[in-house]
Amino acid sequence: MATLEDISVSAAINSLSAVAFLVAFAMLRLQPINDRVYFPKWYLKGIRGSPIRYGPLSRFVNLDFRTYIRFLNWMPAALRMPEPELIDHAGLDSAVYIRIYLLGLKIFIPITILALVVLVPVNWTGKTLELKQFKNLTFSNIDKLSISNVPTGSKRFWAHLLMSYVFSFWTCYVLYKEYKIIATMRLEFLASQNRHPDQFTVLVRNVPPDPDEPVSEHIEHFFCVNHPDHYLTHQVVYNAVKLAKLVAKKKSFQNWLVYYQNKYERNLLKKPTTKTGFWGLWGSRVDAIDYYTAEIGRLNEEVNAERDRVISDSEAIVPAAFVSFKTRWGAAVCAQTQQSSNPTIWLTEWAPEPRDVYWDNLAIPYVELTIRRLLMAVALFFLTFFYMIPMAFVQSLANIDGIEKVLPFLKPLIEKDVVKSFIQGFLPGIALKIFLILLPTILMTMSKIEGFISLSSLEKRSASKFHLFILVNVFLGSVIAGTALQQLKQFIEAPTGDFPKTIGMSIPMKATFFITYIMVDGWSGIAAEILRLVPLVMFHIKNTFLVKTDQDREQAMDPGCLDFATSEPRIQFYFLLGLVYSVVTPVLLPFIVAFFAFSFMVFRHQIINVYDQKYESGAAFWPDVHLRILIGLIIAQIIHMGLLSATGADKSTTPWLIAQPIMTIWFHKFCKGRFESAFVKFPLQDAMVKDTLERATEPNLNLKAYLQDAYIHPVFKGDELDRLVAVDEEENNPLVPTKRNSQHGSKHGSDVSPEAGVLR
Amino acid sequence: MATLEDISVSAAINSLSAVAFLVAFAMLRLQPINDRVYFPKWYLKGIRGSPIRYGPLSRFVNLDFRTYIRFLNWMPAALRMPEPELIDHAGLDSAVYIRIYLLGLKIFIPITILALVVLVPVNWTGKTLELKQFKNLTFSNIDKLSISNVPTGSKRFWAHLLMSYVFSFWTCYVLYKEYKIIATMRLEFLASQNRHPDQFTVLVRNVPPDPDEPVSEHIEHFFCVNHPDHYLTHQVVYNAVKLAKLVAKKKSFQNWLVYYQNKYERNLLKKPTTKTGFWGLWGSRVDAIDYYTAEIGRLNEEVNAERDRVISDSEAIVPAAFVSFKTRWGAAVCAQTQQSSNPTIWLTEWAPEPRDVYWDNLAIPYVELTIRRLLMAVALFFLTFFYMIPMAFVQSLANIDGIEKVLPFLKPLIEKDVVKSFIQGFLPGIALKIFLILLPTILMTMSKIEGFISLSSLEKRSASKFHLFILVNVFLGSVIAGTALQQLKQFIEAPTGDFPKTIGMSIPMKATFFITYIMVDGWSGIAAEILRLVPLVMFHIKNTFLVKTDQDREQAMDPGCLDFATSEPRIQFYFLLGLVYSVVTPVLLPFIVAFFAFSFMVFRHQIINVYDQKYESGAAFWPDVHLRILIGLIIAQIIHMGLLSATGADKSTTPWLIAQPIMTIWFHKFCKGRFESAFVKFPLQDAMVKDTLERATEPNLNLKAYLQDAYIHPVFKGDELDRLVAVDEEENNPLVPTKRNSQHGSKHGSDVSPEAGVLR
Repeated sequence: MATLEDISVSAAINSLSAVAFLVAFAMLRLQPINDRVYFPKWYLKGIRGSPIRYGPLSRFVNLDFRTYIRFLNWMPAALRMPEPELIDHAGLDSAVYIRIYLLGLKIFIPITILALVVLVPVNWTGKTLELKQFKNLTFSNIDKLSISNVPTGSKRFWAHLLMSYVFSFWTCYVLYKEYKIIATMRLEFLASQNRHPDQFTVLVRNVPPDPDEPVSEHIEHFFCVNHPDHYLTHQVVYNAVKLAKLVAKKKSFQNWLVYYQNKYERNLLKKPTTKTGFWGLWGSRVDAIDYYTAEIGRLNEEVNAERDRVISDSEAIVPAAFVSFKTRWGAAVCAQTQQSSNPTIWLTEWAPEPRDVYWDNLAIPYVELTIRRLLMAVALFFLTFFYMIPMAFVQSLANIDGIEKVLPFLKPLIEKDVVKSFIQGFLPGIALKIFLILLPTILMTMSKIEGFISLSSLEKRSASKFHLFILVNVFLGSVIAGTALQQLKQFIEAPTGDFPKTIGMSIPMKATFFITYIMVDGWSGIAAEILRLVPLVMFHIKNTFLVKTDQDREQAMDPGCLDFATSEPRIQFYFLLGLVYSVVTPVLLPFIVAFFAFSFMVFRHQIINVYDQKYESGAAFWPDVHLRILIGLIIAQIIHMGLLSATGADKSTTPWLIAQPIMTIWFHKFCKGRFESAFVKFPLQDAMVKDTLERATEPNLNLKAYLQDAYIHPVFKGDELDRLVAVDEEENNPLVPTKRNSQHGSKHGSDVSPEAGVLR
Repeated sequence: MATLEDISVSAAINSLSAVAFLVAFAMLRLQPINDRVYFPKWYLKGIRGSPIRYGPLSRFVNLDFRTYIRFLNWMPAALRMPEPELIDHAGLDSAVYIRIYLLGLKIFIPITILALVVLVPVNWTGKTLELKQFKNLTFSNIDKLSISNVPTGSKRFWAHLLMSYVFSFWTCYVLYKEYKIIATMRLEFLASQNRHPDQFTVLVRNVPPDPDEPVSEHIEHFFCVNHPDHYLTHQVVYNAVKLAKLVAKKKSFQNWLVYYQNKYERNLLKKPTTKTGFWGLWGSRVDAIDYYTAEIGRLNEEVNAERDRVISDSEAIVPAAFVSFKTRWGAAVCAQTQQSSNPTIWLTEWAPEPRDVYWDNLAIPYVELTIRRLLMAVALFFLTFFYMIPMAFVQSLANIDGIEKVLPFLKPLIEKDVVKSFIQGFLPGIALKIFLILLPTILMTMSKIEGFISLSSLEKRSASKFHLFILVNVFLGSVIAGTALQQLKQFIEAPTGDFPKTIGMSIPMKATFFITYIMVDGWSGIAAEILRLVPLVMFHIKNTFLVKTDQDREQAMDPGCLDFATSEPRIQFYFLLGLVYSVVTPVLLPFIVAFFAFSFMVFRHQIINVYDQKYESGAAFWPDVHLRILIGLIIAQIIHMGLLSATGADKSTTPWLIAQPIMTIWFHKFCKGRFESAFVKFPLQDAMVKDTLERATEPNLNLKAYLQDAYIHPVFKGDELDRLVAVDEEENNPLVPTKRNSQHGSKHGSDVSPEAGVLR
């Protein structure tokens, strides 16, 4: 068991590393040469064209020392941009995402204050751990502040019971308010959005084969008959997997060509050469520039041939299409209704944004989809529950005795105080972290196999898988296997009612472990996030070898984006910890609050200055976030129940706690009925309002031309075209002209821009 | 433990009582005086106008002895009517309902044969129960045929494992086929249906209050704006609770008036008198006919005044309405889409049939509805789990020793062999039965409080409550509390994995109990159903005192209807028993098969000749039936798992069984996705086909006039009018003229009718 000293060592290490990251960030971000790493968003927006120079001296290093003095300025700057402007600037997804951190603050600041004021004195004066029979056990000072210090059967547990209710009510209240706010934000966002192709378009899948006519005509006839007044046009989906591969190959060859051309320009004496074999490692040596030029020419022809084949060959059309309607009303109707009496064909759903579409999954038949989901459910089960074995092993290493038993020759080293503190305070967190890094890719692949058709739904699905994984492996795994691996077996054979008791009993003992975990993952991890080490290095490598024009430099930027699938379940883990320990070990709460506050600031800075979202789903993920916080709450309530009944509190307390999870489940149902439809359905009234407004303001709009090429597989567009279309959608048709529009293209807009986030 | 002799006694008693009921039925049904009790359906259909007379002698007694010889003729007659005609005659609900029994036969006949051929020999030759260490225990011969006779750890359990899989696969296969057939039947039924008001109508609830205009105009404006091309008209809903009470009171007074008038006609000398006080028990004595005539006159005025008030008072309009559309397509769109961005207002759903509407629940606001559901969920929990206590007491009485302990003075009586057999074989079943009779009314009231808006959904909801109740109290209650009340406590404190084991262990021992239960509830119960004792007595009472005209006699008929809410969960119980015991004690299966065969015949007869359904939901209940059979299957699979692991079968068998419930759950999901939408959604394609057809055949139809009064609260219509409208809907607008139509009104149609069910 880690003592207060171990915690202090860990806190010191983590605070220092966090501060080190922050200082490094503060220095690096002021160098003009790194400007595109730390402020890519502004370049992508077209507000900034080249780095701001400090003084006339250098393009690369900032020599204006006054700016260094204000090196922590980014923090208030990050908080200064008002929310409506933030939504405008970074999209609703990002703005709502950082509200999760804000929600954490709203929930936990009052809980922390109340818990410290009420429960800590109650626990502290419990004095169980000072009794003689416990003298042989080593308890840390932290345990004296926890529920373990209250004597068995004490009346003091009524305080914990009451607080458990108060905390639950407060959490639900804040969640309700937040759900309401976010539903309103989403509705306003959708209502104020400019014209988008997805507003008029429905994705139709599982078009049944027709012996008499090709897919495209079959679709047209079906919708002409069944939506006669509303059907406008449709776009078929081509199976362009091979074409996409060829295009990717061509792009890679172009990169190499540029690389060798740059090399040649710098040293005109030596013509660069390469080998034609695998990865340039063997084969005959040839002139690199000539070779790649020829290869690109050949690939160009292949790409064109394949493109022609795909467009002309009816076999290359998959039985799915994007069907567009004359009005938003017509699309809303088609997306929400069932078309055919056979529910496995003519499946319609609202089309995702063009850039949100995951093209490879559009053609999966219904039965195959069901089987894929079954297989993935089984795979997820095995992944979740058999991953536990290595985890338990690592966790047992965190126990000094365990290491000494396994590796006895390390004993003299380990017994040193510093090393001991390090192992106990730091290692478990690191070990967990490494395990978690490997996982998201696997989970995303599984979601892709399950056949979701948009990036946003893939991310949402992966997030829920990851959440389950964290619950079982990180939380339950740490709580149970951490104290003893054997407990796992005991646990299965224990009486039914002991399920929550077993967990409840080991929860207070794991408080110190989770405190270190919060510091490693929450504090240092977030500080590392803002430093962006990997993109920094990558940018400079690309900048050195591949960049010739400003446009190349723009492509070398990797702004990255919020990785919902991994980061949201991790936030959920902090909610869970906070809710569980709110009653048990209140001293853990300030660490949670610090995490939320720090993360809020960092991510607000990142979404303002760095991240470029790949798609905009209009905060469609919020119901999941809400649900998972409630799952955390219910788990906490059950653990409190187990803990109170196990510590033999008054017999009369436990029944009172049974009502808690039931009421929470009811609250979930209530919120679901009240708000969820705002995130999954499309009210006809709103569609009608927008249609009417548009008909009045733009009576001569040629919608068919506008929608004609909206849903074309990206490989059919050039890269340039791609971006232009995206900008076009967003900015060409504003119902209300935006401020951003007028700044578009002004190279040094940031110097005078009112966007606070970029001011230094 | 009941022995084979007890079972025989019980079988004898029950078979005799069943035969007695059947003979009584066969005699009574041939008497012309009972014709309206046993063949009300034909009167209601208008095919029969008065009883068939056998010979010229009597209107009351059948003296044609030839008919008595063929007294079991109703059985083949009941089976003779082909299914399409049955649907036409009795509606899809009834036709599909009796297919549940057919499904039972389809599932259990092959299972029974296989189990008797394979498992009985395997069990019989197990010989465990003949071993010395079991000599002191009393096992019946039935147990020798059950799994208890297989020695612990035997390889023979592989046979049970294999059979468990075979039975599960067979059950799922049959269920899949049946779901497919019923979905097709429903779609064909809906497609071939004549024009009905509910095809064009959507029920709108939670209309938000508008300060500027009354509800009716607000609704009209909303739908004119949001469904401009489709909205036709709407009917507001009046709060007519008080009016309905007045009308009911008036009707009761009219009955009394008729009663006294009849009395007076028979005995002209004595003027009947009554007392004016409560129930005619006290108060001043007055002339009855004058009194009731005056009272009815007064009530008539009151009713008229109240009717005028309701229609004119805007306060009496509830915020709900039936909105009708110009096309089925428009209604399908409105029913399936969300209207407003606030999902708690303007809630639309497909309107139930006019006679299916439960008027009292139309005006419940959203939040109140959620709270009501929560309260009812809690109430259901308590009802289900605290009902167990008296049940356990009665069950323990079935144990002879239990009775002797509680009521020692009965000992000499009980010890007699006949009485002992009676108590053990008969009493437990009867006791259960009495408990179950009280329940449906409570459950239906709970469903009404939950706020469902149609009779069909109320019945579906009550059925699922009753199913839960039967599962917990009849099944689990009998299995666990029956062996010992203390086991309940042990059970809660037992290890998690022992949950299925505990049940699995006591299952084989309860086989004899469930066999008696099947005979009492299944055999005698069903035979009593066909005798219709209560309606028989009631009819003759009414006929004697209240009937003056033929029309009165028609009203005195009580055809009754299938009571889905109580009878379907009871069938489910037999499915559960059959699936559980298929592997454990195969000798129980023939009893189940006999139950299904007998019930199928009886209910087919009843729906042809007796029942008059109150509404037609188009077999909307099938997904529930399917789900509950699957729940039974999963319970059976888990019990088999527990039993096999408890009897220490090969360690390697148990893991094989875990896959079973998982695959079954997946099968459920698959079926849900594949078929359920046929029962809850309304494909636009089908709507469009019917619209187009109608437009072609009846271009001049005045739909508005047709729909104008379709959804009027029943108290605003006279009773006569009510029936006329119902007939009108069904028969006035056939796309294809039906045979039935031509018979309509022919008084002795039955004599020449091809409807086989009525031939004698």
